[in-house]
Amino acid sequence: MSFIEKLRSAQERNRSYLCVGLDIVTANTPLPIQPYDEQMLPFAREIIDATKDLVCAYKPNLGFFLAEGAAGIVALERIVRYIPSDIPIILDGKFGDIGNTAEAYARGAFEQFMADAVTLSPYMGSDSVKPFLKYADRGAFVLARTSNANAGEFQNLSVQGEELLFEKLTRSARRWNEEGPGACGLVVGATAPQELARIRELAPELPFLIPGVGAQGGDLALALRYGRTTTGLGPVVNASRSVLYASRKVDFADAARAAALELVMKMREAK
Amino acid sequence: MSFIEKLRSAQERNRSYLCVGLDIVTANTPLPIQPYDEQMLPFAREIIDATKDLVCAYKPNLGFFLAEGAAGIVALERIVRYIPSDIPIILDGKFGDIGNTAEAYARGAFEQFMADAVTLSPYMGSDSVKPFLKYADRGAFVLARTSNANAGEFQNLSVQGEELLFEKLTRSARRWNEEGPGACGLVVGATAPQELARIRELAPELPFLIPGVGAQGGDLALALRYGRTTTGLGPVVNASRSVLYASRKVDFADAARAAALELVMKMREAK
Repeated sequence: MSFIEKLRSAQERNRSYLCVGLDIVTANTPLPIQPYDEQMLPFAREIIDATKDLVCAYKPNLGFFLAEGAAGIVALERIVRYIPSDIPIILDGKFGDIGNTAEAYARGAFEQFMADAVTLSPYMGSDSVKPFLKYADRGAFVLARTSNANAGEFQNLSVQGEELLFEKLTRSARRWNEEGPGACGLVVGATAPQELARIRELAPELPFLIPGVGAQGGDLALALRYGRTTTGLGPVVNASRSVLYASRKVDFADAARAAALELVMKMREAK
Repeated sequence: MSFIEKLRSAQERNRSYLCVGLDIVTANTPLPIQPYDEQMLPFAREIIDATKDLVCAYKPNLGFFLAEGAAGIVALERIVRYIPSDIPIILDGKFGDIGNTAEAYARGAFEQFMADAVTLSPYMGSDSVKPFLKYADRGAFVLARTSNANAGEFQNLSVQGEELLFEKLTRSARRWNEEGPGACGLVVGATAPQELARIRELAPELPFLIPGVGAQGGDLALALRYGRTTTGLGPVVNASRSVLYASRKVDFADAARAAALELVMKMREAK
């Protein structure tokens, strides 16, 4: 089964475009998890149990696991094995390196950490992207227009007097997706409505991973309006902190479920 | 001691600008290391012992360790602790993420994996770079013009009708370095001579990390000519495969030393 089929199947089964970002910060660990020596795995298990019927994907961000050293990566290796096998895993590492190193990252992400898809940073060009697309049953979301405050600093520069950098990148990603065999999608922040609309116009068929609807304050309605592809695949709309840390008290798992459910209900109503 | 002081001190002590890239690929493990269950640490120990008086830095690339799963990261955690404390460690992860995630990466790199410096990918803008520069005694090398074949695809685009993207990035990096307190340098491939000269012209004071002189075939003489800063700091000239895998037989450590020494002698002659 391809990444796209697996994603579509999870979206339909759970009637959801929500992706929960597993951005675990041990300084924020809820009270009931604090007694554990290693807190990432037990916390993630509770979050997954509380939300697995409400999501279309989970997205662990490598940075938060590296922050805990090798112990964090051991936890990541266990967490991805705890995620039900019919829910896609997007390993958010924003990888981008020369060919032989990109191959190493792809091997790590897809073969060791069981990722169905990764995120990629495109600054180094096509040969930093293609090793990830050699895996026919996996996918890669390339950064197009990100959700952070300074995203436009380079991404919105006018290039060759013709278009903006994120537009050029979008055209490249269409070509990468056509060449395959893996699926190539785009990361487009919900905090940049104009760019979101423009990227959908330029790439009607590409899957979107849309961060920024939770703590970053992006627009969920716009994410849904522009998120869908021409073939009816919905966006992967990510929320991390607003779900994970909805409460830090004994009710944290229920609160995470309630926060996820609220987002999912808004998505279903908007359909 | 700042990263720059530590780097300068190692360059002077070992009379070397050579950085050995610890890009360990277990499929290439030399014969005497193959009996080990976990091969990365014993191999790295032999390479470090054989080259530690010839280098100004070691540069482990995160991708090769992730390729081995959590076991690879456990090995990385041990390898960085084996490197003598007066030799700078550059963790090559080409990180680039939103602010709170960049903080997590910086915590991981600097506090867990003992890095003196990291590499960063700038596509997401200033707020993805600055969290790494909050550490006054550490450094960050931002990708400017990389050594891979498709590097120019985005990096050499003309932006705002005024300059090329890598030139714009170079100006940004000068500002980031001034704002500090950490040191900001640039990654400039030895495979792109014109760009190397131009970037040095634009940023006379910034430290350069120069990959591509080994297996990638870049020009060592040019790396040295343009590598030095106005304050006399030498470049960090990286070679990985050509040193690590100079031999895969019983003489691999001697062969690695010979390959490193040959590069260092060329550097000393060119001075």
